[in-house]
Amino acid sequence: MDHLTLHEDPISGNCYKIKLTAALLDIPLATIAYDVTKGETRTPKFLATINANGRIPVLQIGTGDTVRFLPESNAACWYLADGSDLIPTDRFDRADMLRWMFFEQYNHEPNVATLRFWLKFVGERNLSEAQRGQLAAKRAGGEAALQLMDEHLTGREWFVGETPTLADIALFAYTHVAEDGDFVLGDYPAIQAWLTRMSALARYVALV
Amino acid sequence: MDHLTLHEDPISGNCYKIKLTAALLDIPLATIAYDVTKGETRTPKFLATINANGRIPVLQIGTGDTVRFLPESNAACWYLADGSDLIPTDRFDRADMLRWMFFEQYNHEPNVATLRFWLKFVGERNLSEAQRGQLAAKRAGGEAALQLMDEHLTGREWFVGETPTLADIALFAYTHVAEDGDFVLGDYPAIQAWLTRMSALARYVALV
Repeated sequence: MDHLTLHEDPISGNCYKIKLTAALLDIPLATIAYDVTKGETRTPKFLATINANGRIPVLQIGTGDTVRFLPESNAACWYLADGSDLIPTDRFDRADMLRWMFFEQYNHEPNVATLRFWLKFVGERNLSEAQRGQLAAKRAGGEAALQLMDEHLTGREWFVGETPTLADIALFAYTHVAEDGDFVLGDYPAIQAWLTRMSALARYVALV
Repeated sequence: MDHLTLHEDPISGNCYKIKLTAALLDIPLATIAYDVTKGETRTPKFLATINANGRIPVLQIGTGDTVRFLPESNAACWYLADGSDLIPTDRFDRADMLRWMFFEQYNHEPNVATLRFWLKFVGERNLSEAQRGQLAAKRAGGEAALQLMDEHLTGREWFVGETPTLADIALFAYTHVAEDGDFVLGDYPAIQAWLTRMSALARYVALV
């Protein structure tokens, strides 16, 4: 595989997904760190060369004249895992894995990850009026996402099929630190058991 | 392929993505219609059997004892298109297609589709205070997504590679009706040319 470099912020769960995927697959991955709270992913140079969307993570594939950049955490995980056991070969299971990854980006991340960022890194006293106005909806949305995950995991070890897939990695990233956003993981016993299974995987690495 | 049934609301662009994918691939697809504005996807029966997340679209695969349900529009499109020309075989292009599909669900749909729903179907005078408080942010977010698409499409015919893929279908669904949400498509010439190419595809079907 080409030389791989992750443009990341070490506090980001979206970046961690990619590092966890690479670790589980034993794929070497260099990293370049940015501080999103200082606007380091919105500089003209970053926008022009790394990601016009001004966001990390971005997976850089190759260097020099043949370099390519791949934004979107779950797409980068797919690139790394393509052809591996982390993506099911069964047609339905493969689509069902993507179902949970889209659920993660639509129903989970905008609530669970955003409250973690606002409460742990921005600080409640520093939130804007508009952000304060969204706190209740994001709390309810995050709890609904966790409840749905807990019900799905009851009687199951992994989100799809009989082994861990990218669906587990995508959902693990912000779930295992959800208490940073004042979610109560003790309310979700099936999630807690699954978190324990995830962190016991061979070659598991922790979020810093 | 098993008998396929789409649980849908005909006004939904997310449902339309799946119908457009099926049409382009000439795959027969039955439909069952629900009215989301009347809460028909939040009934106990729907939640217990079709989708615990209370949302459409859901692609039903098979019937009777072997029935399976697949929520999330982009996952359902993947299921239908798996192995077809709508998914690139090149490893980077396949991940890059998913990159645009995750961008669609994270940066585009929550802004462009939500403003369409609020302004065309709910009506501005009927919006809640919380919804009104989000109008400006969703307008800015939607315009940023359209601007990014327009820049990417400048000099390109399709989002990834040289032929249409699921990335084009996913982004077409709410972009071509963005004026329902008071976005001005005349501001985005590369998008307009791409919309024309999309609607000229063989077996294209229109959103009702």
